[in-house]
Amino acid sequence: MNLIIDVGNTRVKAAVFEKDSLIELFVFEKSKIVSEIKKIISNHKISSAIISSVAKLSDFKLQKLHQILDLVELSHQTKVPFKNKYATPKTLGVDRIALASAGVRKYPNKNILIIDAGTCVTFDFVNKKGEYLGGAISPGIKMRYNALHNYTAKLPLLEASTPESYIGNNTNNSIHSGVVNGICNEIDGVINQYKEEFGDLTVVLTGGDTNFLAKQLKNGIFANPNFVLEGLHTILIYNRAND
Amino acid sequence: MNLIIDVGNTRVKAAVFEKDSLIELFVFEKSKIVSEIKKIISNHKISSAIISSVAKLSDFKLQKLHQILDLVELSHQTKVPFKNKYATPKTLGVDRIALASAGVRKYPNKNILIIDAGTCVTFDFVNKKGEYLGGAISPGIKMRYNALHNYTAKLPLLEASTPESYIGNNTNNSIHSGVVNGICNEIDGVINQYKEEFGDLTVVLTGGDTNFLAKQLKNGIFANPNFVLEGLHTILIYNRAND
Repeated sequence: MNLIIDVGNTRVKAAVFEKDSLIELFVFEKSKIVSEIKKIISNHKISSAIISSVAKLSDFKLQKLHQILDLVELSHQTKVPFKNKYATPKTLGVDRIALASAGVRKYPNKNILIIDAGTCVTFDFVNKKGEYLGGAISPGIKMRYNALHNYTAKLPLLEASTPESYIGNNTNNSIHSGVVNGICNEIDGVINQYKEEFGDLTVVLTGGDTNFLAKQLKNGIFANPNFVLEGLHTILIYNRAND
Repeated sequence: MNLIIDVGNTRVKAAVFEKDSLIELFVFEKSKIVSEIKKIISNHKISSAIISSVAKLSDFKLQKLHQILDLVELSHQTKVPFKNKYATPKTLGVDRIALASAGVRKYPNKNILIIDAGTCVTFDFVNKKGEYLGGAISPGIKMRYNALHNYTAKLPLLEASTPESYIGNNTNNSIHSGVVNGICNEIDGVINQYKEEFGDLTVVLTGGDTNFLAKQLKNGIFANPNFVLEGLHTILIYNRAND
């Protein structure tokens, strides 16, 4: 079994994979990473592991993990199963590296657009030759609600909600339409741009807002909330095979 | 000649209309409103005026203006040339009241979508029967750039710029694509929703980002940066005729 560790700004996701399947998922606070990983190891026979950090993890904690795991640290030096055509490959976030890896592994020889809807909505495109070309970074759903409230004098802070109509008939409904109906139009429009240029396109939707958005988009998409974890697993296997 | 005064959060726009034409536009700080209006009056023969305030103006300054002008103060009691079908008409912003008024005056018996691209992007729809139905409020261009920087740890703050490609090949180009290409897809998508439901649609684009956005949209639009001022003039004439 392999262990995948995805370190976010405040939380850590850890996933145990058996062959190609995610069989168990753990979410815990970043501060408890060493003790939680120890617990997982004591209950599962882990042969190999990979760690990816959006947020910096202390050298001390990283050393501790190296002592108890055969660990690959994802960085820009790590071998990946796609050709990185980003103009500045060193600035490509580790999440986006993982997503592109999951894309080429799961949909080989396809044009793939991966949409990660979380704090930001990121778009990542890999063409059928396995070349990562780049994409876009746009404000996420919650960020849009926060911005409308914090950057204006009068608009309220609302929880995300699907508007009954795209024609909002009061302030709250106008905001829900502007954010939720707006982001859906944005995402569908971007998907259509890629389809116009590249023809066949496989679209994957992932991230915390996957389930909220999936049913509202017009384009057909594969909803997969664990695509980053699957991509990290892909990178781990790729590096062990090339060791 | 009529004088139109549009009070924003920090700045005031004042416009002199002769018949239906805006013949002179003044922009000055809110704190100087009384002295600047006095200057305008001394140089133009003003018969009537209207004032609209997004931000509150002190009673003292308002009294001063009443002393020197025959002044209509726009509020929810003011008569307007459209039927307000908003569920909560008292919460409809004065800017949106002005925009709907300009719409029915300039494009009578048409379905009209007015898009005001400023701090926020507001959508306002009036059907061909002259009924205002509502719309949407979405974050504006600058707000999106600010949010991406302020609500994340690593993204830079950028000035608005049209991306060379919708596939951003570095961090900055990914942000420009996410914001500018994203908002264009959003606006075009919303326009298409109205067209699907209502058929013929007249679209007006106004606000500070009019010129930046106008050339990038796929749908045909009328670009008119002064639509709020024209709407306030419409309301003034409508109220004087009904006095």
